Amino acid sequence: MDRETLYQKISTENENKIIMIILDGLGGLPVNQKTELETATKPNLNQLAIESELGLAMPISMGITPGSGPAHLALFGYDPLNYSIGRGILEALGVGIKVGENDIAIRGNFATQEKGIITDRRAGRISTKKNQEIIAYLDKKINWIEDVQIKLYSGEEHRFVLLISGSGLSDDVSDADPETTGKPISYSKAKSPQAERTAKILNKFIIRVTEELSGQQPVNTCLLRGTAKYPTIPSMNELFQLKAAAIASYPMYRGLAQLVGMDILDTGSSIREEINTLKKFFNRYNFFFVHIKKTDSYGEDGNFSKKVKTIEEFDKILPDILKLNPQTLVITGDHSTPSTMKSHSWHPNPFLIKSPYFRANPGKPKTFCETTCANGVLGRFYSIDILPLMMAHALKFKKYGA
Amino acid sequence: MDRETLYQKISTENENKIIMIILDGLGGLPVNQKTELETATKPNLNQLAIESELGLAMPISMGITPGSGPAHLALFGYDPLNYSIGRGILEALGVGIKVGENDIAIRGNFATQEKGIITDRRAGRISTKKNQEIIAYLDKKINWIEDVQIKLYSGEEHRFVLLISGSGLSDDVSDADPETTGKPISYSKAKSPQAERTAKILNKFIIRVTEELSGQQPVNTCLLRGTAKYPTIPSMNELFQLKAAAIASYPMYRGLAQLVGMDILDTGSSIREEINTLKKFFNRYNFFFVHIKKTDSYGEDGNFSKKVKTIEEFDKILPDILKLNPQTLVITGDHSTPSTMKSHSWHPNPFLIKSPYFRANPGKPKTFCETTCANGVLGRFYSIDILPLMMAHALKFKKYGA
Repeated sequence: MDRETLYQKISTENENKIIMIILDGLGGLPVNQKTELETATKPNLNQLAIESELGLAMPISMGITPGSGPAHLALFGYDPLNYSIGRGILEALGVGIKVGENDIAIRGNFATQEKGIITDRRAGRISTKKNQEIIAYLDKKINWIEDVQIKLYSGEEHRFVLLISGSGLSDDVSDADPETTGKPISYSKAKSPQAERTAKILNKFIIRVTEELSGQQPVNTCLLRGTAKYPTIPSMNELFQLKAAAIASYPMYRGLAQLVGMDILDTGSSIREEINTLKKFFNRYNFFFVHIKKTDSYGEDGNFSKKVKTIEEFDKILPDILKLNPQTLVITGDHSTPSTMKSHSWHPNPFLIKSPYFRANPGKPKTFCETTCANGVLGRFYSIDILPLMMAHALKFKKYGA
Repeated sequence: MDRETLYQKISTENENKIIMIILDGLGGLPVNQKTELETATKPNLNQLAIESELGLAMPISMGITPGSGPAHLALFGYDPLNYSIGRGILEALGVGIKVGENDIAIRGNFATQEKGIITDRRAGRISTKKNQEIIAYLDKKINWIEDVQIKLYSGEEHRFVLLISGSGLSDDVSDADPETTGKPISYSKAKSPQAERTAKILNKFIIRVTEELSGQQPVNTCLLRGTAKYPTIPSMNELFQLKAAAIASYPMYRGLAQLVGMDILDTGSSIREEINTLKKFFNRYNFFFVHIKKTDSYGEDGNFSKKVKTIEEFDKILPDILKLNPQTLVITGDHSTPSTMKSHSWHPNPFLIKSPYFRANPGKPKTFCETTCANGVLGRFYSIDILPLMMAHALKFKKYGA
């Protein structure tokens, strides 16, 4: 029996509330012997650690640094090596496009060509405003290619997203991207016979764009990459019988939550606004995914002290979350983003779970950090086990077998 | 290569004795900051912890609460998600029926009907004595249905077990149970074409019982549930070349041991009697599974202090086990049964292995409990790894590969 069959077999519904708080990129590496989490003044998180089970969660497996897609799939209980979210879909989610199950999403670059030779793969990184003007123009001109519907969305600078929808489409096609300048406009090739038609549609699109923008500078053609179908993922309700809602200020995380069937709640961009949303909807769902982005953003910027301050800001708001009295509460990250690395890393995530059914941690640590979590009662485990563990603590899993 | 192929490849026989003591439901949760194991006075277990490797064993995986069947399969080295023991078989084992490889076992309820409508699914929970009288009566009347042999066994109150044996039978049939009162007598349906005949036999059985008991009160019909074939599991001798014996006072655990090919030794119901049995047969086998039930029973009853006392009772007898000088000794549980939860739980099992080849635990703990085990040298691992680990310590595994 595979994991998902097991989950479906033993999941049951009850009123116990679960809150999963993801401080994106929470884990770090030491500077002057202390990580961001160890440097932060965080009395509320420390108090919570005393009443919680601690551990370290590995997003995928040892040594693997995940992107946001696989890291969140794991947090939601899905094997990130079984389900993949194609680049086109992730880009669409990141721009906040609502992608449907019959859509295929493609990342586009506006580019410059001269006599059919690509001279700039990013068209001089045009302004986002210019991008929006071009998309508005093309949107009037290109709506269908054969019987396939065409939708276009602006991204930042030279980037755009192309959605195509129609019957018999496939994402098994190569990128239409010469990868360096000085080469001819590139076209997509089918990697399997069923994808012939999709490659033809994509190539007709490139030709149409090149025609429509003929004579313009610097944007007069495009590249297409990361063609991806909408992934087929069972919903959290199907797998776990959860009534799940997502609170996230960034489009990509709302999109990832939508992929697994969560309701997406309107919220503001600050932690305070997110927690106000949590309060407002607390009676309506029994599972909440709350995503806090700034820890990761400051980690990516290499801004150690602002990452510390974001943790402190969260710590001050934590009592308001505890006042809701969720039956089960998890606080962790999706992956580590050490400020010293300015990037995601493979280091496991500090993890905390509070419920009425917790066992003490060895040595009874009094702080929440990478080091106390490394010695926590939960040990080192895979992020894919977080959701089952929460289900257990919330008494939403029946016994397996007699 | 799968696990079982690996085990078969590297297993070898020697005279080293292994004892695996299962204190059923051993692990717990704290009351006044101490679990049952932490509360118990247990100098012998504590001394043993100093000379053993400690760890926490997860029966299935994080968050999964197992029944006794899957929990014991894991202890015996079998993947509990690959092998399943059907409800009917488990019920039969629990009542102490010797089930053969060609038998299909079904859980029966005596029930009450009026004009074909079920009015009580448990026939007023008749006495076990009354049940035995009815079974004795039916046993004279119903021995064959077509060419299928029928065997009946009393359980507690309204419960009985039906064994059917014959060629071409299948367990792929639905329950014959209306699930609520006020509905007609229910019949079994085949879920696949090969099961048509089995469903017909079961339904003829229900009709025969209803005819034979016509006019009686309150038992005048029956429900049939959990139809299950004898599982096909390779024996411990095939997989590990062990000469294995089971000492267990409860029928279900004797049955589970029998499923994997252990010899079942006659024993009494107390821990003392079980250990006397161990002494008596110590020269005849090289692997002993000793099952102690009361820790679980008191946990299920929510009786914290009696669970503590059972651990203390075991601790007093432990020196007698050590005097046998087994080359490898394991003491652990099959799953946790916290008295506070009055049920099995998902929390991992405190685990101890003693052999001449042990490494020290970090911090050199001096007690055996959930917390010291959480910090043990073995970390947190899956119960399915216990048997291979014992095989290794007993030098019964050859090197894998050159």
